[in-house]
Amino acid sequence: MALIVQKFGGTSVGSIERIEQVADKVKKFRESGDDLVVVLSAMSGETNRLIDLAKQITEKPEPRELDVIVSTGEQVTIALLTMALMKRGVPAVSYTGNQVRILTDSAHNKARILQIDDQKIRADLKAGRVVVVAGFQGVDEQGNITTLGRGGSDTTGVALAAALKADECQIYTDVDGVYTTDPRVVPHARRLEKITFEEMLEMASLGSKVLQIRSVEFAGKYNVPLRVLHSFKEGPGTLITIDEEESMEQPIISGIAFNRDEAKLTIRGVPDTPGVAFKILGPISASNIEVDMIVQNVSHDNTTDFTFTVHRNEYDNALSVLQKTANEIGAREVIGDTKIAKVSIVGVGMRSHAGVASRMFEALAKESINIQMISTSEIKVSVVIEEKYLELAVRALHTAFELDAPVRQSE
Amino acid sequence: MALIVQKFGGTSVGSIERIEQVADKVKKFRESGDDLVVVLSAMSGETNRLIDLAKQITEKPEPRELDVIVSTGEQVTIALLTMALMKRGVPAVSYTGNQVRILTDSAHNKARILQIDDQKIRADLKAGRVVVVAGFQGVDEQGNITTLGRGGSDTTGVALAAALKADECQIYTDVDGVYTTDPRVVPHARRLEKITFEEMLEMASLGSKVLQIRSVEFAGKYNVPLRVLHSFKEGPGTLITIDEEESMEQPIISGIAFNRDEAKLTIRGVPDTPGVAFKILGPISASNIEVDMIVQNVSHDNTTDFTFTVHRNEYDNALSVLQKTANEIGAREVIGDTKIAKVSIVGVGMRSHAGVASRMFEALAKESINIQMISTSEIKVSVVIEEKYLELAVRALHTAFELDAPVRQSE
Repeated sequence: MALIVQKFGGTSVGSIERIEQVADKVKKFRESGDDLVVVLSAMSGETNRLIDLAKQITEKPEPRELDVIVSTGEQVTIALLTMALMKRGVPAVSYTGNQVRILTDSAHNKARILQIDDQKIRADLKAGRVVVVAGFQGVDEQGNITTLGRGGSDTTGVALAAALKADECQIYTDVDGVYTTDPRVVPHARRLEKITFEEMLEMASLGSKVLQIRSVEFAGKYNVPLRVLHSFKEGPGTLITIDEEESMEQPIISGIAFNRDEAKLTIRGVPDTPGVAFKILGPISASNIEVDMIVQNVSHDNTTDFTFTVHRNEYDNALSVLQKTANEIGAREVIGDTKIAKVSIVGVGMRSHAGVASRMFEALAKESINIQMISTSEIKVSVVIEEKYLELAVRALHTAFELDAPVRQSE
Repeated sequence: MALIVQKFGGTSVGSIERIEQVADKVKKFRESGDDLVVVLSAMSGETNRLIDLAKQITEKPEPRELDVIVSTGEQVTIALLTMALMKRGVPAVSYTGNQVRILTDSAHNKARILQIDDQKIRADLKAGRVVVVAGFQGVDEQGNITTLGRGGSDTTGVALAAALKADECQIYTDVDGVYTTDPRVVPHARRLEKITFEEMLEMASLGSKVLQIRSVEFAGKYNVPLRVLHSFKEGPGTLITIDEEESMEQPIISGIAFNRDEAKLTIRGVPDTPGVAFKILGPISASNIEVDMIVQNVSHDNTTDFTFTVHRNEYDNALSVLQKTANEIGAREVIGDTKIAKVSIVGVGMRSHAGVASRMFEALAKESINIQMISTSEIKVSVVIEEKYLELAVRALHTAFELDAPVRQSE
């Protein structure tokens, strides 16, 4: 008999009908004999409605009071699901973050979980009850209601699974797993049976928005097996777990991530003196602009070119900061480009395989796609290309790394 | 410097605009130097919306879970008002029933307050904060969220005032006080400056729906001065307080209450034996039908007539129960009438004045209104009359007991 934590997001509990469906699903699981803790988000749209109410009072709501309001969203869904379970003859009980007690720090609207009291939950599980817990919320040492910030329900699920030493934390969502790449771009993309935490982190941060990064980090840290599943379709989903040594046969590349959210800025003819990188990036970071890729080429004639990418929303902002810097340090010019895309190959397998990068570049060259920037980490290679080639690049790489499904998946 | 508890109902916080108005009002009070604890209901309609959500899952929602849902209504308004106060530069903090801690028994949906911890509130008041408390809710010994049942926010206000030994509990509502009778029936009805708890109880239970009976009882028991005021109009309202001995000049009658919610049932020709009243009313009460007035006439020929009133909604139900009883005990017949009204004169002054009842009967006789039933208590005389004479009777009594305002009140 296993102990499973199941987390259902806002879309999965977005209406009474959906909540009834979740209840059916939970009941079926319960009947198979597993102990179940269910973590819920607010009904989709509800959190925004509540924030909007607060914003009607003031543009900058008091963070403590905002948490008092926003936390009501999950409080409603946990009670509704518990009622739906009891209607089906499944003993169940609901707990708010405060009731559990999920102790957090006092950073309202973005609190971090410090400790979870598992006493009540264990007693209820022992008594044969399904325990339904409000995600996204907790309570601080002083008894103030806190929230973990957007997507925090995943974190609640993982943290509960860690505290209870659960066998698995299942995240139910609107996709049936993690794919080798976005099926909208590559129709024969494959669902992965398994992926490592590290790979998932790279996939997630690169735009596969299946799971919150924070919850994956958390799961990795406490080694909680995570499984992504579809809320209303059957299927094994994708298991996210540690890198098991025995997996000799695992493919070199697990997936291909991409995004078109970035813009590129280059400052040219920078005098190549020590500390110049800081002189350039210091003002950018002081303006609260996050930088992603950074590339500096080797210098010639004692000057160098320095290129980095930022989120497209920050492009204008970054450009004006950079132009000021260019004047100060006597750089030749500043150029920028918003029509770029980033494509990355991700896989723990590349650690032990040489030639992964060259195979990537070869595949892109075959399609005459010019590479503008390159950046590598232990389990990923990212390139920046012209935006219009994005789909072509992803498809070419998907084929080159043998990720295509033998038979097309039915949707 | 006084300590005042102010309670605003659902209509007073029914929209963002209304909440802003309440914030203006509270700010003004605060500036006058008083310490303030503000108790709020949910936005009007919100509690029903939440109950409706639960009812969509199941006709009989689990009481514990229903409280989890319903208590979110006040949680939203307390945070919104607190934000609105802070926007105005008024330091404030919100507390749920659990956070205060308002300890109740575990009777979900109709819990009773056992104890209030005043520690946090006192500390906040001392620090110069307005304390905004969720009405209608509490927490039981095990940490389960409870609600006090409909109208429970008044009770929260009074209980807090009692626990804090407040100088006054102000109930803000949509009327500007307690009137000698319903101004819709008697346009020159007067607002009472003052009324005793006992009188208010009689007025409330007889259909003046200004205050919840339970909160008046509570206020009387702990001798908390209660004041009924209009949420958005200026004015002193009506003070509900203990009967002060010195009030020699108080009018004999404070007000005239009435209702048309009742129906009358008579069982005739009942063998007049001991225990017959129980034989008649036992089955009625076993059917959960509440009985209001009961009159039994003196017997003749060893049979008697037995008459009582019930709520009109229960009339059909009561009639069929009574008919069964009539067969069993060999009564002659059962008759009933739904077209009745009850009119009562209420006043602590009548204790020391003879002839109040006869003055009432005289006034009714003058208008040729036939009295069907009479029932008296120490501070009230009630009569049942034909419904169509109700307005006429109320106006006649209002004049006979010199309650008419000298000059018509402006609305």
